[in-house]
Amino acid sequence: MRKNTRAPGNQEIERKFLVKQLPEKLNRWRHYSIAQGYLAIESFGRRHVRLRRRGKSASLTFKVGRGAHREEREIKLSAKQFAALWPATAGRRLRKLRYEIPCNGLLIEIDVYRGKLSGLVVAEVEFPDLAACRKFEPPSWFGREVTGEKSYSNVRLATE
Amino acid sequence: MRKNTRAPGNQEIERKFLVKQLPEKLNRWRHYSIAQGYLAIESFGRRHVRLRRRGKSASLTFKVGRGAHREEREIKLSAKQFAALWPATAGRRLRKLRYEIPCNGLLIEIDVYRGKLSGLVVAEVEFPDLAACRKFEPPSWFGREVTGEKSYSNVRLATE
Repeated sequence: MRKNTRAPGNQEIERKFLVKQLPEKLNRWRHYSIAQGYLAIESFGRRHVRLRRRGKSASLTFKVGRGAHREEREIKLSAKQFAALWPATAGRRLRKLRYEIPCNGLLIEIDVYRGKLSGLVVAEVEFPDLAACRKFEPPSWFGREVTGEKSYSNVRLATE
Repeated sequence: MRKNTRAPGNQEIERKFLVKQLPEKLNRWRHYSIAQGYLAIESFGRRHVRLRRRGKSASLTFKVGRGAHREEREIKLSAKQFAALWPATAGRRLRKLRYEIPCNGLLIEIDVYRGKLSGLVVAEVEFPDLAACRKFEPPSWFGREVTGEKSYSNVRLATE
């Protein structure tokens, strides 16, 4: 088994930052609300199964690993499938508004958390390869990098 | 939140036994092969998400709790949904042949394990209510009762 290699479609290379100041006119970018909850969380979140509703579409995602490298498998769920499983995530959910901002050929995703996490704003950038990941220069409105910090994982945010 | 009450459709009341001797002419009863694997196992198996293929049909099941009382939520999966998630269960799978034997208005499910668990045979009986559960008298070919014993949970059998 090799580590740190990229299985096409299954692994993500990404960095995560706090956001010091939201860009102006944020609403001009594509945005939508997300509600997500966790069916099961194993090994302190290093392996988990997540349900997500994004607008009218729903999905179930399996993730293992954390930080810059991880494996992810996702399926779309019908409204009926989602409704049958969603009650099992009670007490381990979060809501956020996501904005998608194009930036030098990359996509910055800004998550503005709502509900009990209101006030927290996080930016995530996904990269096509490790080289692009390393050479990325954060824009001035980004704050501290929190890539791989457990306390900013969505699993922890949803359950604490 | 109440405990030990039954939410219709969501909770199972069942007992589990080892099988001393398989009944004769077992193949006259309905039977089918089952392959199952675990996407995520939380709290030593007390909460988990399971994938199962039974003949040509596939499902994803959420379970929380153990023993005579537990909550269960299940959805059917398309072949495509199943195929996308199944690789994530590598190393935490088991195979068995299940026989369904009607007995005094109840259904006895016999699981004959295969592969590395070959030789293990377990019977499970599900009850409509607690009264039926308590008054059940095991047939002579049943062995020791293992209801609630962690070492005979499918989660443990699949991962050890």
